Amino acid sequence: MLKNKTITARQEKIYSYLEENKVDAVILADLEGLRDKSLRYLSGHPQDALLFLFAEGRSILVPWDVALAEKNAAADRIIPYTDYNRSFTAALEGVLKEQRLGPESSLELSGQFSFPTVTEVMNLLPKAGIKCEKQGIDSFLLKQRSVKEAGEMESIRRAAGITNRIIEEIEGLLRESKVTESDLALLIEAEARKMGAEGTGFETLAASSARSFAIHAFPSFSAEPFGGNGFSILDFGVRFSGYNSDVTLTVVRGTLDRMQEEMARAVKDAYDLALSLVKPGEMPSRIAQSVEALFSERGFRMPHSLGHGLGLDVHEQPLLRSDLPEDSWEPLSPGMVFTIEPGLYHPGAGGIRLENDLLLTTGGAEVLTKARLIYIDNSQR
Amino acid sequence: MLKNKTITARQEKIYSYLEENKVDAVILADLEGLRDKSLRYLSGHPQDALLFLFAEGRSILVPWDVALAEKNAAADRIIPYTDYNRSFTAALEGVLKEQRLGPESSLELSGQFSFPTVTEVMNLLPKAGIKCEKQGIDSFLLKQRSVKEAGEMESIRRAAGITNRIIEEIEGLLRESKVTESDLALLIEAEARKMGAEGTGFETLAASSARSFAIHAFPSFSAEPFGGNGFSILDFGVRFSGYNSDVTLTVVRGTLDRMQEEMARAVKDAYDLALSLVKPGEMPSRIAQSVEALFSERGFRMPHSLGHGLGLDVHEQPLLRSDLPEDSWEPLSPGMVFTIEPGLYHPGAGGIRLENDLLLTTGGAEVLTKARLIYIDNSQR
Repeated sequence: MLKNKTITARQEKIYSYLEENKVDAVILADLEGLRDKSLRYLSGHPQDALLFLFAEGRSILVPWDVALAEKNAAADRIIPYTDYNRSFTAALEGVLKEQRLGPESSLELSGQFSFPTVTEVMNLLPKAGIKCEKQGIDSFLLKQRSVKEAGEMESIRRAAGITNRIIEEIEGLLRESKVTESDLALLIEAEARKMGAEGTGFETLAASSARSFAIHAFPSFSAEPFGGNGFSILDFGVRFSGYNSDVTLTVVRGTLDRMQEEMARAVKDAYDLALSLVKPGEMPSRIAQSVEALFSERGFRMPHSLGHGLGLDVHEQPLLRSDLPEDSWEPLSPGMVFTIEPGLYHPGAGGIRLENDLLLTTGGAEVLTKARLIYIDNSQR
Repeated sequence: MLKNKTITARQEKIYSYLEENKVDAVILADLEGLRDKSLRYLSGHPQDALLFLFAEGRSILVPWDVALAEKNAAADRIIPYTDYNRSFTAALEGVLKEQRLGPESSLELSGQFSFPTVTEVMNLLPKAGIKCEKQGIDSFLLKQRSVKEAGEMESIRRAAGITNRIIEEIEGLLRESKVTESDLALLIEAEARKMGAEGTGFETLAASSARSFAIHAFPSFSAEPFGGNGFSILDFGVRFSGYNSDVTLTVVRGTLDRMQEEMARAVKDAYDLALSLVKPGEMPSRIAQSVEALFSERGFRMPHSLGHGLGLDVHEQPLLRSDLPEDSWEPLSPGMVFTIEPGLYHPGAGGIRLENDLLLTTGGAEVLTKARLIYIDNSQR
């Protein structure tokens, strides 16, 4: 079995959580249709498995691909999922038996499990205490994951570094030649891997000015030319050792009409305002509210969040959203990594967004990535 | 609002389902962390939305991106998700009010919803009848989706055609020159889009002989050379108008050792056996059992399913698995589209898999794709 101090330390925290909450075992799953990066966080195994953590301090991983698990996983025991015919309830029964947990045990299931699955477990183990809630193990883990350890920061810095080299390359290319949306997306895929990334963290979104009005253009890129007159959006990120970057640059080409000029100015001002407000102790919802007030004063409305945490997931805690209930607010802390991404979209004028990744330190925000509004053939600048 | 006869006809079937089951409304969601292609199937809207279908014959879509919905969705009404602060429970309350459904209504939620979310709904609407189960609307929809309409078959044929042209191109390339895993994956991305596909349907898996032993290599492709001596696996699919192809070819290079020869022969024989057994009325589990028996006789074991349905999802009904409970078995019907993909994996010998897509007609199986074992520099053939 692989030994991994970082992962062992994370598992220890869960064992303490279990003791404090008088729970005998917690069960996480990362399966098709139920993706949960906390499984990788707590085991090192990248995907497609169940993870059982027992209060007595023992971990069992039930992976689909055992060869992959033996290379990657730090768990006390590995049992192939195929031993249970890849049935969740069969695996649950089998592993509890292996661990000699009685029928009246107290179990916590990740809050990601579907209602029918949890109901099935309750029927299967009628005497067990079954806990499955949003404020349970999931929020405990999301909060823990929101503050990055040194190794995690290093991975995110590497992802950001690769991202920055790609941005530079793309800017050069855009100034020199005509490219399609697809050219850019494929260049990113290829360069990311050449530079040592696992790949991109999500499907690159390359939307030329004709279709940048959509928040997330569909399909995400096409064989059409990128970067016509007006606003063209490029949103991408790379994954290094599991950790993600996420940036959006907007190419601004040609002469803008008045509406476009106002949109560009508002997005830039919103970005600067957000950056000036980011500091330890500040409430992310408040920063989002300030940015929305700026847009509102100028007659605009941003149809998405101001930003989101980055880590093993592309979207994680903290969320920079104005519309969260106040009792769920948590202040920003040193070690958090998140995006700032003000954007505006208009069916006629197109869409413009500027997104960079920040690492919060005790001293303030360090901007890790170098996306910007790239002006080309624009006499107004 | 967009008019779309195909989608209207699908919605009508749900209205009948609701009447038969005495349910006032059914609620589906396709959101981050809860992907459900049935939403696209029933609305035309590709992603990120809630869909409400009311027994009285009315549909309401609550999309995140309204501009995208107005271009794609066939629904009687579109209400922006942001009107409800992107809160599921707020949207539920708002839409039920808009539809004037009382507190004692009978509602069915898709079986994909998490346990905590459904519990929240039950607390919010204590007098309502809330249904959420595996054998409800989800299995009704999956069964319906498993038999393709004419338009769906046409999209899958287009996806298969593009796939076949890419296979040909790749075979030529492999015979002529040295390529990396990444070269192949990026070629597929680029060619698929040039030929009119929306993109690939899943991350291409290109695993050279050094790492083909894993069922699903991780990362899915790297900057390392593809196709060294032994077995190298290439698993990919393209998406055309939402519909997927899925093929795996194995490149067999150089002289094989005895184990490898036996693996290659077993996979080819298993593939031929499966193909010979596919016909309307046959049980997919039985076909899988026959293939497993063949492997078992030769001392091998396949660690995954024999195949799976293809459509809006890359994995859907029917499942060609031997380990499903007999009371869930459904016979193959004309109009079904699914893969056949026998495979064997060994830490030393590597992995070999052959996967093609079949369309079942009343006359038998039509093989839509042309993946095969590609022998290069192999004196044994």
